Amino acid sequence: MQRAAVLVRRGSRPRASGPWGRSHSSAAAEASAALKVRPERSPRDRILTLESMNPQVKAVEYAVRGPIVLKAGEIEMELQRGIKKPFTEVIRANIGDAHAMGQQPITFLRQVMALCTYPNLLNSPSFPEDAKKRARRILQACGGNSLGSYSASQGVNCIREDVAAFITRRDGVPADPDNIYLTTGASDGISTILKLLVSGGGKSRTGVMIPIPQYPLYSAVISELDAVQVNYYLDEENCWALNVDELRRALRQAKDHCDPKVLCIINPGNPTGQVQSRKCIEDVIHFAWEEKLFLLADEVYQDNVYSPDCRFHSFKKVLYQMGHEYSSNVELASFHSTSKGYMGECGYRGGYMEVINLHPEIKGQLVKLLSVRLCPPVSGQAAMDIVVNPPEPGEESFEQFSREKEFVLGNLAKKAKLTEDLFNQVPGIQCNPLQGAMYAFPRILIPAKAVEAAQSHKMAPDMFYCMKLLEETGICVVPGSGFGQREGTYHFRMTILPPVEKLKTVLHKVKDFHLKFLEQYS
Amino acid sequence: MQRAAVLVRRGSRPRASGPWGRSHSSAAAEASAALKVRPERSPRDRILTLESMNPQVKAVEYAVRGPIVLKAGEIEMELQRGIKKPFTEVIRANIGDAHAMGQQPITFLRQVMALCTYPNLLNSPSFPEDAKKRARRILQACGGNSLGSYSASQGVNCIREDVAAFITRRDGVPADPDNIYLTTGASDGISTILKLLVSGGGKSRTGVMIPIPQYPLYSAVISELDAVQVNYYLDEENCWALNVDELRRALRQAKDHCDPKVLCIINPGNPTGQVQSRKCIEDVIHFAWEEKLFLLADEVYQDNVYSPDCRFHSFKKVLYQMGHEYSSNVELASFHSTSKGYMGECGYRGGYMEVINLHPEIKGQLVKLLSVRLCPPVSGQAAMDIVVNPPEPGEESFEQFSREKEFVLGNLAKKAKLTEDLFNQVPGIQCNPLQGAMYAFPRILIPAKAVEAAQSHKMAPDMFYCMKLLEETGICVVPGSGFGQREGTYHFRMTILPPVEKLKTVLHKVKDFHLKFLEQYS
Repeated sequence: MQRAAVLVRRGSRPRASGPWGRSHSSAAAEASAALKVRPERSPRDRILTLESMNPQVKAVEYAVRGPIVLKAGEIEMELQRGIKKPFTEVIRANIGDAHAMGQQPITFLRQVMALCTYPNLLNSPSFPEDAKKRARRILQACGGNSLGSYSASQGVNCIREDVAAFITRRDGVPADPDNIYLTTGASDGISTILKLLVSGGGKSRTGVMIPIPQYPLYSAVISELDAVQVNYYLDEENCWALNVDELRRALRQAKDHCDPKVLCIINPGNPTGQVQSRKCIEDVIHFAWEEKLFLLADEVYQDNVYSPDCRFHSFKKVLYQMGHEYSSNVELASFHSTSKGYMGECGYRGGYMEVINLHPEIKGQLVKLLSVRLCPPVSGQAAMDIVVNPPEPGEESFEQFSREKEFVLGNLAKKAKLTEDLFNQVPGIQCNPLQGAMYAFPRILIPAKAVEAAQSHKMAPDMFYCMKLLEETGICVVPGSGFGQREGTYHFRMTILPPVEKLKTVLHKVKDFHLKFLEQYS
Repeated sequence: MQRAAVLVRRGSRPRASGPWGRSHSSAAAEASAALKVRPERSPRDRILTLESMNPQVKAVEYAVRGPIVLKAGEIEMELQRGIKKPFTEVIRANIGDAHAMGQQPITFLRQVMALCTYPNLLNSPSFPEDAKKRARRILQACGGNSLGSYSASQGVNCIREDVAAFITRRDGVPADPDNIYLTTGASDGISTILKLLVSGGGKSRTGVMIPIPQYPLYSAVISELDAVQVNYYLDEENCWALNVDELRRALRQAKDHCDPKVLCIINPGNPTGQVQSRKCIEDVIHFAWEEKLFLLADEVYQDNVYSPDCRFHSFKKVLYQMGHEYSSNVELASFHSTSKGYMGECGYRGGYMEVINLHPEIKGQLVKLLSVRLCPPVSGQAAMDIVVNPPEPGEESFEQFSREKEFVLGNLAKKAKLTEDLFNQVPGIQCNPLQGAMYAFPRILIPAKAVEAAQSHKMAPDMFYCMKLLEETGICVVPGSGFGQREGTYHFRMTILPPVEKLKTVLHKVKDFHLKFLEQYS
């Protein structure tokens, strides 16, 4: 609808459609009448436009909730309006959102949360004593015994103590509560640490090394902060292993145009699902020590290890085992979250980071920066507490808790194997073992004719593929280009979170689609 | 402890204190042994230091949780260790944290939250039907009917609808759910909008107009974003009123060195407690329209109005009542929160913003930016829903809800008057009426000798005053210099949240301290 401009003298008030200060309903009626009487009025130019906005924010990309997900939303609306499609529902396999895929919350976790939320329930006989004990402990550490108080910016003290005790048990090396910071999910911690680290201009601008493929939070935050993204490629031929020679190559090349100061590791890998060997972690730590890089270890999938020959080793543990020269020098921030693992509590936005060897003055700066946002959600902090302090053998809830946890993790392991096996039966799809995390990231053959068709639609070839998959099957996955991949290769990321039977259906639909796609563009 | 450096050849591995890959406990033991054997080892230089860190973050200041609060924490620890002080507890009157000061949560809000957290309770006869109805509605809008799922980045759909309905009822002018964004407290919304708005370099860098005194979130975010802070002064002689001539002066001067594009308003004021008249809001909107400024209206204290001759008017309402030329052109973001009002649910980090007249392309950019952090805490979103959708007359919980709400707000009104009256009885303290919000911001006389003493301690005079107050009485307030004030004037901000009797004690202690301070430095 084209509208004619209305001339209004600058400095004089425009004619209002009635006297100011009139009653609300008449004002609303008049505004609506004005709209009808003067449909030709044009809006003036906006202050905030694509041209005037923050260029760093404009440059941000985040594929996990990008165009394909907007399209999925549109299709869902069409289905609701009764528009016929070759499918009846959209399956959102684009994001690691366990509960949305039907996974049930861990009972014990929710019991403690309910008790903290509404402490009258502490008198109810229908809640177990061990849940009440934990709720009382959390509440005693909250101002006014309420989840509604702000916590310290670094997080509730006793929860930080519980996190430190958890890390100490996990690693067999000591953790200090003073080095623990509770966060609003892991994303918040990662972006806070990067925010501290970025400085300099031109060739001395901070470079941040990230794996390719990566989780796009990293590239997005690097862009927001106007830092320099330094890519190192994971070795697809070798189960997406991290190779220190490749780190060395990337670093050497980056030094021409920036000051690489940070090395980010995702272990287990997202989207790639590899689990790093202890040897690999040692090599990476030695490299960071040698090259003076600040290490960021994203370990949110530490409970999600499925391959029988893989085990999770934390960077913190290996660092300490490598001896004093490393453990007292390498600056390391490691991240964990309530969103993944067996609990899948994404909505609470709980997480923590442990930061070691931070300069004492920087510690003050970090706390100051955190304090501007006051504190992470206290309910998310409480959820984190239950994750690091679950029922112990002999406690009332132990058996049910263990059963629920094993059910989720056992099923994920089954689904990881199922997905790998099924994808590898399809011509033109190659899938590395899903050693950990909760995604498949198969490589797909896209025929030259399809690449041309994509180009004519101004789309990346794998975006074109994923859009077609969505439109024809209702399955929403994220194109590999959203995570980064070697040029000329194509992938997509799909979660393995749907229940087993549903996942089988999904995988068969992908297979059928793929074969049809190959045929159509061959 | 001074330590001697250990020479380690670059590129070769430092000697580990034992073979790698040994068992955890022995590793820990050896690490600890190493610590004892080689106490003279020095840490290398850190990568992240005050010199190398992000200079914008270094420049951030946030007084509400600044040095005085760190000192308060130290004093609390000393009290715990049995160290004798002239008081037995620290009273944290530095921050608007209602529950920490003993205010009880609103029962209905917590009942709905508990039902959402642990849906088994939906079968319990001890929860009222109206609470269950709201919990069911929220859960039906969550993926997998769980608060543990991610929501849409903009927030849960039905909650955005409830917010829009609330605004429509409040203002008598329509609100569109599509313009509502749920946030992690109001702070998150404010910093997100500012992040979008900042661009340019040198003289074309974005200027952001903020009131002085201000809530220091604004100055902190402006510093983080390397934007230009443009101060306009509130009129202390006139109950901290906002004067458009002063806006005009500030804008004119700022245009010499930056591009002022944003005007921030806090109404009711923080720390100043004034409530803007409808006329003043009209003038501000006209000014923003005329000068092409993007308006940010921080309205988190909208329920906290105490003076009988004051009323809260939202910027959105006044904007619409001023006619189509304004309502279809002025870009306005308004903010609300679960943290203040009568509910005081700070810990949940709930909030929303309504953004109108945003360019459609920018809307896409905003959603993209929000999506990088996935979503605001869903529990905070649920809390926000209950605030905008409380029990209605005729519903089971209405009476109790109204009683609890009135109790909190009635008490706050009493305490506002009490505080104003008592401060104004003290020679050397002048306090404007606390028309709204939850703080007193009295002006204090600091004698020349005290100013000198402060300078010799390298402290701002009001920091010196507040530190002495803390050390002698245990009362923690924030110096006016943390909010900004006209040069040569001194203030502090104190919450009026302690229960009435306790607040009386606090006020009398401040009075006694102040008289003693005047005497000591006269």
